[in-house]
Amino acid sequence: MRVHVAFTPAEPAAAPTGVVVDVIRATSTICQALASGYERVLCTAGVEDARALATDPALVTLGGERLGVRIDGFDLGNSPREYLEAHTPTLAMSTTNGTRAIVTAAERCQRVVIASLLNLAAVAADAASYGDDVAVFCAGVKGTFALDDAYVAGRVAGLLDCERSDAAEAALRLVGSYGSAEEALRASRSGRNLINHGPALEADIPYCARESVLGVVPRVTGMRGAAAEIRLA
Amino acid sequence: MRVHVAFTPAEPAAAPTGVVVDVIRATSTICQALASGYERVLCTAGVEDARALATDPALVTLGGERLGVRIDGFDLGNSPREYLEAHTPTLAMSTTNGTRAIVTAAERCQRVVIASLLNLAAVAADAASYGDDVAVFCAGVKGTFALDDAYVAGRVAGLLDCERSDAAEAALRLVGSYGSAEEALRASRSGRNLINHGPALEADIPYCARESVLGVVPRVTGMRGAAAEIRLA
Repeated sequence: MRVHVAFTPAEPAAAPTGVVVDVIRATSTICQALASGYERVLCTAGVEDARALATDPALVTLGGERLGVRIDGFDLGNSPREYLEAHTPTLAMSTTNGTRAIVTAAERCQRVVIASLLNLAAVAADAASYGDDVAVFCAGVKGTFALDDAYVAGRVAGLLDCERSDAAEAALRLVGSYGSAEEALRASRSGRNLINHGPALEADIPYCARESVLGVVPRVTGMRGAAAEIRLA
Repeated sequence: MRVHVAFTPAEPAAAPTGVVVDVIRATSTICQALASGYERVLCTAGVEDARALATDPALVTLGGERLGVRIDGFDLGNSPREYLEAHTPTLAMSTTNGTRAIVTAAERCQRVVIASLLNLAAVAADAASYGDDVAVFCAGVKGTFALDDAYVAGRVAGLLDCERSDAAEAALRLVGSYGSAEEALRASRSGRNLINHGPALEADIPYCARESVLGVVPRVTGMRGAAAEIRLA
């Protein structure tokens, strides 16, 4: 068994088991939403694709942000703290980097699970349980390396305790260079963007840095048109 | 001034100044060959493209390897220790990962220089001298992250002493996790491949790990058909 990390979606990584990380904040929000009772999350890259899914407000909640701010006309933004209770069976989310990584992983893996620090232990145990090679896909920011996602990839790689690719080894060494998850998240460009938006968004950093507080393992069940569907097993 | 690192050629990195790293072994060999008196190096991805450049053996030396072994009919392999003296004015080299990174950087940067540990201080000083943003392009292995290149990128970033992207910060932290350059090179997949080929190739690791022993700054001067031309300033 071997673990590899793709720091950006463009890298040619593939493995039977895929793990997607967009810790600030899409995959943290997906984990929180499903743990809170949403039956499924539909992730789209485009805003209009998400809007098109919201035909009935009794059935679908619309969530997402651009540049840290809730999208005009959407019910909720992209803070996991907005998803502590489910309002409808379906959450339709627009998230650019996260959706790209999820769709990439789904094309290259037999199974894809969604990772954050919130569900770290559960998702690592699930990924290990298949006995197959694992590829961790970091969402990154606009196709480039993101420190926060790389940190979480290193945490997943460390829990898998198997042969490591060069990238997995580097991610693990990155983890060792920080005193805590919150320190790593604060140091990342995505974390600094939240801090620059003020205390309301900055509060998402310690929230997303909490480790293994949710037992959920969200899985990609397939594409529904332009949306990746994610449900609990 | 800001420094960014592209760990793989597919990442959308760009800056006025580009620095290319393929430390095991293409950029180490390019630095050594130019320091030894070759007037120019022509890098091609394809073997036949290199062969087509070698019309006159008095003018062109053919160098390159596939899977660690000298290419059939080529004069030399890809060990920098084979380039301690120049046999002809031109060296035509076939190197898959290195050429891809060089061509990518040339498309996105105003100027591109070639980095290894052998010329570390000289190339970092040159990159800093323009006062422009710097992007370090790691050749990687078949499009994926390579620990040895990432290590050298971190060394370059550390010497530039300017604002760092997430990737540059991660590369610098990777450097801090190793006791020496040779330790990092030995731990990489490329380094382990050399070790597995036996003592003759393993000896390239300490050779490539020597720091700032050459004062050369190889520059990409343009494309000559399918070949990237590299000369000293």
